[in-house]
Amino acid sequence: MAEAKEPRPDPTRRPHLGMRAGELDGKWYAKYWNPVMAPLPGHVRDAITLGPQAPPLCLSLDDAGRLSDAGYQEFENGYSLLDDGSMYVAALTRMPGASPAMVDWWFGWHATETQRYKLWYPRAHLYAQWHGDAVDRSTPYRARYLSGTSFVDEYVGNVLGRLAIRFVRPGRLGFDEDGLAPDEATAICATVGMSQVPLDWGWLVHYVRRVRDGAEMRSRFWMGGGHVATRAGARLGSELEAAAEGVRRLGEGQARAMVVHCSQEMNHLASFLPALFEEYERRR
Amino acid sequence: MAEAKEPRPDPTRRPHLGMRAGELDGKWYAKYWNPVMAPLPGHVRDAITLGPQAPPLCLSLDDAGRLSDAGYQEFENGYSLLDDGSMYVAALTRMPGASPAMVDWWFGWHATETQRYKLWYPRAHLYAQWHGDAVDRSTPYRARYLSGTSFVDEYVGNVLGRLAIRFVRPGRLGFDEDGLAPDEATAICATVGMSQVPLDWGWLVHYVRRVRDGAEMRSRFWMGGGHVATRAGARLGSELEAAAEGVRRLGEGQARAMVVHCSQEMNHLASFLPALFEEYERRR
Repeated sequence: MAEAKEPRPDPTRRPHLGMRAGELDGKWYAKYWNPVMAPLPGHVRDAITLGPQAPPLCLSLDDAGRLSDAGYQEFENGYSLLDDGSMYVAALTRMPGASPAMVDWWFGWHATETQRYKLWYPRAHLYAQWHGDAVDRSTPYRARYLSGTSFVDEYVGNVLGRLAIRFVRPGRLGFDEDGLAPDEATAICATVGMSQVPLDWGWLVHYVRRVRDGAEMRSRFWMGGGHVATRAGARLGSELEAAAEGVRRLGEGQARAMVVHCSQEMNHLASFLPALFEEYERRR
Repeated sequence: MAEAKEPRPDPTRRPHLGMRAGELDGKWYAKYWNPVMAPLPGHVRDAITLGPQAPPLCLSLDDAGRLSDAGYQEFENGYSLLDDGSMYVAALTRMPGASPAMVDWWFGWHATETQRYKLWYPRAHLYAQWHGDAVDRSTPYRARYLSGTSFVDEYVGNVLGRLAIRFVRPGRLGFDEDGLAPDEATAICATVGMSQVPLDWGWLVHYVRRVRDGAEMRSRFWMGGGHVATRAGARLGSELEAAAEGVRRLGEGQARAMVVHCSQEMNHLASFLPALFEEYERRR
């Protein structure tokens, strides 16, 4: 069976929320653990209050590469629900003092250790395990995560997700990779799937570009509906079909929770990424 | 039948929302009736915007007594929905100029008269009737409500609840009663049940402690799911079973409505309690 060949996260893991005594002992980055989350920015609060937006305002997955156009789109924050049962989520995060290269670094650095992953979202992140090619300090930041899979357990709202985030090259979603000079812009692109069964249920892009005082991240998620697909040639048996049914038709609660989750984690990240990265670089 | 022995609110009551002409005639506290509710505090608005939080962040009912620990918990405002169908609700209310003893007094004083109860939440409170031991002016404030039952009709969101709030000793929920000196802290603890049928569907605690400029109240509700239980040895017949089914699996709308209700009534109470209490004391 195709499924058997797929990597899976450690089935014996017993993740817990929060940081317990001793878990940060000896970690040079311990001081970046802050369980008090950065507040949700006003522009995201306002967008959520508006409820689901008209579907034609959504950027289609096929046009994801247009995030690298100058300026902003007409739908930078909030969510929509589409006729095929899918949801669209958008969030803008301002990251003063950060750079696109720092965000590339973050995606390679955080994924290999649960404690690092928890820095990102102390109220929701439970577990991280990396599956990918070996890298070393000479590997460019972006190449450290490309083609790898991040297995994570995390709450989105009150729902526990056991996810496989498989990073893909930006070109796969229509970005001109030559235009993504690490100091100027990056596009973190991935499929979002379940880690326990070979089922993907969507795509994400975090497009990050330099702005005057640092960087800004424009996140997009396309999940559910027509985006649900088996992985690794798996056939839709009854177990997989049940899992697929659970994500084919998404509701407003899930879309809101996803906007909040994305915005909370990225704003919290923005609060410590420049200092964390600078200290990492200093220690090399 | 065990149910027959249970006290019930007056079956002939015809409650109405709001205050009609004459209903406050001769009441010394008439001037504290203010139908314009105090606004929801920003920290509660923000918490609601975040949607349901991860269940491991919730204080468990068994640990309720930990509210008397110094400092704050990681989940002081907002709500969660748990796998057993229950909901968890938390709200912090600042009460400048108030004291824990005033809140103890309020719980004994308001419950014996509908008009007093309506002061608390003019947009939602309909009816109050007290069942408990006789008290007089020499009875300490806390002892006036402990072991009594407050029958109330009130809206939570748009849903009318006919409730039996049965107060219990704080020790029942794990509080060290010796540590609850009336001037320093109090913990109002109760089961929340239906008044028409012998069914409880949850618990509440309002833990109040002195702070520099007055008092603060930290409220918690555990409702639905595994908290649903019959009272007075009643058996789950078909009528009771139908009532139980209605509260076993609670949804996001109910949880949000409960946060809003609790925060609105407590903030409104905070707006007049110090003056009301002072006048009460002056008139003794």
